[in-house]
Amino acid sequence: MNGELELILCDIGNTTYHFLIDGIHKKYLLQESLPKFKETIFYISVNDNAAKKLEKNQEKCVDLEEFLDFETKYKGMGIDRKVVCLGVENAIIVDAGSAITVDIMENFKHKGGFILPGISRFINTYKKISVKLDYEINTKVNLDTIPLCTQDAISYSILKSIILPIKEISKDRKIIFTGGDGEFLSKYFDNCIYKDDLIFKNMKGIINANNRIA
Amino acid sequence: MNGELELILCDIGNTTYHFLIDGIHKKYLLQESLPKFKETIFYISVNDNAAKKLEKNQEKCVDLEEFLDFETKYKGMGIDRKVVCLGVENAIIVDAGSAITVDIMENFKHKGGFILPGISRFINTYKKISVKLDYEINTKVNLDTIPLCTQDAISYSILKSIILPIKEISKDRKIIFTGGDGEFLSKYFDNCIYKDDLIFKNMKGIINANNRIA
Repeated sequence: MNGELELILCDIGNTTYHFLIDGIHKKYLLQESLPKFKETIFYISVNDNAAKKLEKNQEKCVDLEEFLDFETKYKGMGIDRKVVCLGVENAIIVDAGSAITVDIMENFKHKGGFILPGISRFINTYKKISVKLDYEINTKVNLDTIPLCTQDAISYSILKSIILPIKEISKDRKIIFTGGDGEFLSKYFDNCIYKDDLIFKNMKGIINANNRIA
Repeated sequence: MNGELELILCDIGNTTYHFLIDGIHKKYLLQESLPKFKETIFYISVNDNAAKKLEKNQEKCVDLEEFLDFETKYKGMGIDRKVVCLGVENAIIVDAGSAITVDIMENFKHKGGFILPGISRFINTYKKISVKLDYEINTKVNLDTIPLCTQDAISYSILKSIILPIKEISKDRKIIFTGGDGEFLSKYFDNCIYKDDLIFKNMKGIINANNRIA
């Protein structure tokens, strides 16, 4: 296996190739052309076509899905969700990106989960209902009073729609937040932590745990 | 004023002209051409351009907004929301259409409200995040267990995102549901009623209460 310095990781999502190269994040839209890397790219992907494109155009790629050992009764769970849940004993794992996935781990076992739209997707949805609902989120909206204007009404609704289902399922259990909006959302919860780059940390964990990966 | 039989009512929304003509519903997309009515059209509108088009092409139109007496500190409240709240003493009013408006009336006074995306808009949002999230809602999803497949995860999330904010605000107060998805949503609540065509009933109420309307 290559040393830490040459490790190139890639999380292929629905809109971007998200690379971590020597600790530096680089994002490319799926339709963009990628630089050609000499080093091996260790990737996970929820997008078959984008993964094929990567495999075709790069020197050497390793799909980490083959090395992942994750049991669940859940049908159709994305590899990215599995990776962030990896090794968690007892917690709710919330990965807040374009979708917000919420997964429940009990005694190292995955018990199921659900999928909320991400904050930016909520904003887009309102915009499409009516131009009169085209607002940015007011991140300081008071969630303890009834809104008295459209921007607050939308901001309150988005945050309540995300926060309340997570609160209901978590009860008093620990919550691990990750993903682009994870840090922001974590401030609405008590018993929680925010983990930066959890997906990449766990991808490295898979690589380190598998001697088979050259 | 014309007799009950000739009354033509129109609720102009973000996607349709919704008519009630002698008790019969007729919907036309905003871009469609409308039949020419000889009778007066009594309308409310949240869409200025669509209202102008109606005024231009029809014999006689009366905008009921001028006859509406509704006080609120809420800035930017749509006329349709005001009309469904009209005359309510103490209740939460939920109008579930392309948006789901939730308004609080206390002692005949409007105290504020919020706006959730409608069920069909949630479905569209998931579809746009990923083709893997393109599902119809499972209206029979069990909301007491953690989902174990994508369709249930989406259905659970949509319903929880709508139900929990309404439950939180309503506490034990009465809820009045109306709108296309109002009857379906009402089954998740105890202290509630569903009122069909509340908007048109209240429009008739405005007409009957105003002798000025010819």
